Amino acid sequence: MRKMSKLFVFFFCCAVVVNCSPKNEKCKVLIANPSVPQAGLDILEKKCDLIKINNESKAEILSKVKGVDAIFYATYIPLDKEILDQAGSQLKTVSLMSAGYNHINIPELKERGIKLSNTPKVLSDAVAEVAVLLTLGAARRSHEGRKKIESGDWKSDPQWLLGQDISGSTVGIIGLGSIGQAILKRLKPFGVEQFIYTGHKEKTEGKELGAKFVDFETLNKNSDFIIVSAPLTNETRGIINDDFFSKTKKTAVLVNIARGEIVNQEALIKALKEGKIFSAGLDVMTPEPLPVDHELLKLPNLVLTPHIGSATVKTRNSMSVLAAKNILKGIEGEELLTPVF
Amino acid sequence: MRKMSKLFVFFFCCAVVVNCSPKNEKCKVLIANPSVPQAGLDILEKKCDLIKINNESKAEILSKVKGVDAIFYATYIPLDKEILDQAGSQLKTVSLMSAGYNHINIPELKERGIKLSNTPKVLSDAVAEVAVLLTLGAARRSHEGRKKIESGDWKSDPQWLLGQDISGSTVGIIGLGSIGQAILKRLKPFGVEQFIYTGHKEKTEGKELGAKFVDFETLNKNSDFIIVSAPLTNETRGIINDDFFSKTKKTAVLVNIARGEIVNQEALIKALKEGKIFSAGLDVMTPEPLPVDHELLKLPNLVLTPHIGSATVKTRNSMSVLAAKNILKGIEGEELLTPVF
Repeated sequence: MRKMSKLFVFFFCCAVVVNCSPKNEKCKVLIANPSVPQAGLDILEKKCDLIKINNESKAEILSKVKGVDAIFYATYIPLDKEILDQAGSQLKTVSLMSAGYNHINIPELKERGIKLSNTPKVLSDAVAEVAVLLTLGAARRSHEGRKKIESGDWKSDPQWLLGQDISGSTVGIIGLGSIGQAILKRLKPFGVEQFIYTGHKEKTEGKELGAKFVDFETLNKNSDFIIVSAPLTNETRGIINDDFFSKTKKTAVLVNIARGEIVNQEALIKALKEGKIFSAGLDVMTPEPLPVDHELLKLPNLVLTPHIGSATVKTRNSMSVLAAKNILKGIEGEELLTPVF
Repeated sequence: MRKMSKLFVFFFCCAVVVNCSPKNEKCKVLIANPSVPQAGLDILEKKCDLIKINNESKAEILSKVKGVDAIFYATYIPLDKEILDQAGSQLKTVSLMSAGYNHINIPELKERGIKLSNTPKVLSDAVAEVAVLLTLGAARRSHEGRKKIESGDWKSDPQWLLGQDISGSTVGIIGLGSIGQAILKRLKPFGVEQFIYTGHKEKTEGKELGAKFVDFETLNKNSDFIIVSAPLTNETRGIINDDFFSKTKKTAVLVNIARGEIVNQEALIKALKEGKIFSAGLDVMTPEPLPVDHELLKLPNLVLTPHIGSATVKTRNSMSVLAAKNILKGIEGEELLTPVF
């Protein structure tokens, strides 16, 4: 019995040593991007030691991740088994500074009991702004217009460079999450005749916003504007493909502000070249950054922005603050504010 | 008395001959642009002979204007004394296919008793769309973003290419006519904190839309976004000048969808180069078309569209129909639907 007690005390002490840091040892957080907005770092610095990287690369992450309690993962470099192995078993939480988490090896994190958070909602307004920018730009041929000014091919012909009307149109939204809803609210006063949306299931918010839930094919066939605001999953990867473009209206405008891989890019290029749709606007593409000689850059009826959906001062600060707060919750073993799981 | 009667009958007959065409002579309308949408011409063809030009030039107009009852004036070529002299005294009405009429010699028309109509309101929605496109594009640096994709200078840095937030901003509208109101309605759901406007006087519509009437200087100093939607008059010509830019916020975004001459372009170029404002978006500039080597085309923080405000199929058709209806009213001596005077 005495032996048992001693053994128990020994194991108890070991457990204490393993699970808790000594009081004077601060938590360690890897900041996996050299340019994280200070607003979030200010919050973390009060309680943790921050380990910063000098440039955004996997090598840098691997060289500094060992022994950290949390990773502030503001990068699209895939977070894989190699990084997790290198980090070590003390890693409790990974905090993303993005809504999407398709670059994260979810099964590996789950297996190790590592919590994952993202930053949804705080970026919805900014991303919705870019969605409307691309919708209007593609509808009104803004890139083609710019090229025509530059080439001296400007006409004052009343039939010249005519765009698609939003007023009276049917707008189809693929994925009516917080971003999709923010887009819908912004497009409403443009005189849209009907909003339809598709996704896993009908949503209360859809009803409240006056949007009709339809299946994927119905959305495709009926929409004058098709806006992709769904997460990239195995289910959504490549759903906008040749088959899709064989059913769209020839006057349709496609906008993608979600993830490039949802659209089969070869099929989109073909559709834009062959007039299967009128035009498109992309904030996301494959790969990012795009090679400068890429076919996408040669299309007159395509408006491109370089994945700037959430790129405003206020939004990036909010994302940084939310990501930091999630880290503190994760380290303290509390429920995350915006958990992926 | 008998002599008097005879004289009366004689004058009466003369009057009939002068004022009315014989029954078999149709009214004549010059269509002063070879590309006027057919929708309007369909209406005119039922009652009038249409005289069409082959290319949009003053020489063409001068060669075909003689003897017409009306001119369908879908061009920005100045309508001057020379054209009116050449037309002849039978010319009753000039019908524009635009909201603006700064290219028309108003005193000359008035002196000759020629009625003038424009096509306001039917184009407000389309122009407001372009205003929002330019507002978002300038705020979110769309042209700079495109150039960075093209040059391979794309970063995934959370501090890169940050734009101005519309949410929480003060939007100032110069000229709250039907276009200004249409812009306001569309920007409302973007989370604008406050709308202010300036113009000749406070408007009922402004109050209804929740916008505050302020003087020009107050608008300038307080606005995060300044949108010009006023007509070009002697009062508005060049009001956006060096003095104006000396008072703007350094983070301000300027948008002009009205007429290029309202903005002193040299002052704007200086302001954009020296960071006196953040960015600008122009659908109108001086001159139009812009020379391909123009300084405006070299500025990264400027979004340009080639005067496409009203360029949608539906809008241009509506404009053509309204312009045609105004012509018929003008020829028949009835009140115009949308008279300038």
